[in-house]
Amino acid sequence: MHPYELIKRKRDGGLLEADEIAQFIAGYTEGIIPDYQMAAMCMSIFFNGLTDAELAAWAGAMLRSGEVIDLSDVPALKVDKHSTGGVGDKVSLSLAPLAAACGVPVPMISGRGLGHTGGTLDKLESIPGFRVDLGVERYRELVRTIGCCLIGQTSTVVPADKKLYALRDVTATVDCIPLIASSIMSKKLAEGIDALVLDVKVGSGAFMKTLDDARKLATTMVGIGREMGKKVVAIITDMEQPLGRAIGNSLEAIEAIDMLKGQAPADYTECTMKLTAKMLELGQAAKDETEARARLQAVIDDGSALKKFAQIIEAQGGNPAVLYDYSVFPTARQVVPIPSPVSGYITAIDTEKVGMAAVALGAGRERVDSIIDPAVGFVLEKKVGDKVEKGEPLAMMHINDAARAATIIDRFQSACAFGDEAPTPRPLIIETIE
Amino acid sequence: MHPYELIKRKRDGGLLEADEIAQFIAGYTEGIIPDYQMAAMCMSIFFNGLTDAELAAWAGAMLRSGEVIDLSDVPALKVDKHSTGGVGDKVSLSLAPLAAACGVPVPMISGRGLGHTGGTLDKLESIPGFRVDLGVERYRELVRTIGCCLIGQTSTVVPADKKLYALRDVTATVDCIPLIASSIMSKKLAEGIDALVLDVKVGSGAFMKTLDDARKLATTMVGIGREMGKKVVAIITDMEQPLGRAIGNSLEAIEAIDMLKGQAPADYTECTMKLTAKMLELGQAAKDETEARARLQAVIDDGSALKKFAQIIEAQGGNPAVLYDYSVFPTARQVVPIPSPVSGYITAIDTEKVGMAAVALGAGRERVDSIIDPAVGFVLEKKVGDKVEKGEPLAMMHINDAARAATIIDRFQSACAFGDEAPTPRPLIIETIE
Repeated sequence: MHPYELIKRKRDGGLLEADEIAQFIAGYTEGIIPDYQMAAMCMSIFFNGLTDAELAAWAGAMLRSGEVIDLSDVPALKVDKHSTGGVGDKVSLSLAPLAAACGVPVPMISGRGLGHTGGTLDKLESIPGFRVDLGVERYRELVRTIGCCLIGQTSTVVPADKKLYALRDVTATVDCIPLIASSIMSKKLAEGIDALVLDVKVGSGAFMKTLDDARKLATTMVGIGREMGKKVVAIITDMEQPLGRAIGNSLEAIEAIDMLKGQAPADYTECTMKLTAKMLELGQAAKDETEARARLQAVIDDGSALKKFAQIIEAQGGNPAVLYDYSVFPTARQVVPIPSPVSGYITAIDTEKVGMAAVALGAGRERVDSIIDPAVGFVLEKKVGDKVEKGEPLAMMHINDAARAATIIDRFQSACAFGDEAPTPRPLIIETIE
Repeated sequence: MHPYELIKRKRDGGLLEADEIAQFIAGYTEGIIPDYQMAAMCMSIFFNGLTDAELAAWAGAMLRSGEVIDLSDVPALKVDKHSTGGVGDKVSLSLAPLAAACGVPVPMISGRGLGHTGGTLDKLESIPGFRVDLGVERYRELVRTIGCCLIGQTSTVVPADKKLYALRDVTATVDCIPLIASSIMSKKLAEGIDALVLDVKVGSGAFMKTLDDARKLATTMVGIGREMGKKVVAIITDMEQPLGRAIGNSLEAIEAIDMLKGQAPADYTECTMKLTAKMLELGQAAKDETEARARLQAVIDDGSALKKFAQIIEAQGGNPAVLYDYSVFPTARQVVPIPSPVSGYITAIDTEKVGMAAVALGAGRERVDSIIDPAVGFVLEKKVGDKVEKGEPLAMMHINDAARAATIIDRFQSACAFGDEAPTPRPLIIETIE
């Protein structure tokens, strides 16, 4: 295998064989193939793409660059969910205990927030004491004993992706669907899962801004799963406005707990129910969506979903008292209303802008090494389609650094568009790709 | 200037400003911008190209990465020639003394052979004692005093190109017209020239295999020259068969000396006359091509071109006795005829294949650090359109390693195509782009 020949072939629109891709990725992981050759390869892939077979080989080679966690001693079908990221997307925090409470083991390795989107690990860590760095042995034990474990990436799992992601980040090859898809899928398939539900977000708060791109990404990931013999379903969901009302780590954790109590906003509840129901189907814990939804409603109603979350929190070192007393969470010094600048209907929310306003509050990261503030964020009082009077609060801002309040209020207000008529409502669940 | 933003913009088909390009190239030369970002940029340029303005900025930034040699103390217009490379292309060796003998100073910084093509420096070094590593001061002195100097690249001239060429060579971004054009032009404009004649070779023995690509490269280089205020003319010439009869370093040097004596093959003589005449025009040593050709014929006829070459060889440490006694050159142990496998007309010669057969003899380099053998090569007995009987020699092979003879004879024979009729002759001089 000559790396040069493979770069040139991909550059010229030719096909790479599975074993060539395997050697290229292995060589890169071991440092035999230098960054500059991988950069040239990634840029060629940006322009010429990867076929289904190449994609499966690429994702498979990434997967095999490190440890593939063996959960074969857990008899039930293990199912995970992955979201491509959005603003206010706290689905994992309610979905994992719900599925586990219904008997579907959820082995979940998540990421941190970067850019305008939040990350599951940051939200979990807003629970005092909660640890996401448990190591693979404890992860396997918790999946086996309590049916769920929520951790961060370990150095042994998909090392190729860590190296490659850092390179893509500085060579303008991040926003490349085949590379995004194989990065996600290699990490998810290394968890030891049998099936996967993908939540592909589309809209102003998502990485995929158009339905066309979201469909491409969804289809690509489902294709990789199929080629690798895993059951993968992608559901495209709306991210033209924040999901639910809470944005910010402890605020979102609280909303997730509310969901397990049956008290969360309708859009967030529905998104969680839809995705978790699909997990139950794939995990053969329900024969169809109707049965799955009924089972989920039952574990909410009888409190067993909340109890499952308590069990998870306790097993991972967190304080389960948060479930019943939200003052156990870190709280911000000030809660300041963001007044509407005009009267009218909210016709749109530039969700990426709202996400970046939350980052400015300290809820997210501008750089990988930024330190986040778990207490800060927004709780929306109004959403798209709602009527608002001038001066009435659009949202409540939870803030610690009062000096930044005025600027952030400005940014939040300017992210909202107003009109005389309510816009046509958009569907939350857009389509399912199996 | 964020390197990432510039890569992304070029990737997405946007335009780079001149100062952005200048900073990118300067940053790369200084090691602030790493190889992997330049690799991503080059691949983006491969796909999206550079506009005329971007090209001029790119070539200008390369030029300014090092020393631009000042030859302003040489009063006449300095003119050089550059060939994009071919097989048997020994034009520089006769052209430089011819132009200098007509009063046009020729400051020429050349390269070595790589791949199937030969290099001027290797051919010059077949002259015993000839040195091409004289340094910039001696170069300036010789251009001023004898009107010509032929050296290799120095570390101070266009360091960006040395670094970038090595990177392109391993990232499959060598065969990219904007990068080829700016590499050539930056090196040539750093020589201290006022005008430049470009010999853009096209055909099976050239890097540009199609007339369309050759035209693109020629137009691109002429455009860079124009943007940078230099007179540049490109002449597209045929490389569907080796130029002249000799291939290999000392064999080509001998043919070049023959040309200065008026005794060289017609095609090589015509190619040299055409290109040198254009240099005389650009150097204002002749008002038109007719006058230029007459002057060139005069310096051949009166022996002053040969005398000029003697002067150059002596000044650069070589033994001028080679001019009158070819046995002073290194000679091969054996001269073996390559018989024609059939009777008929030679209809085509795969010239790259012949070049690679010469490399296999030891006349060229397979790697940058290969050591070449100055004595070996081929002298063609037949060229395209010639009639040949089965068993009659196609060429004489000058070889030192007799064990390889059979293989190389096979390769040479298989590079020739035969037919029952002579093919339509192709023009040698295809077109001129001013």
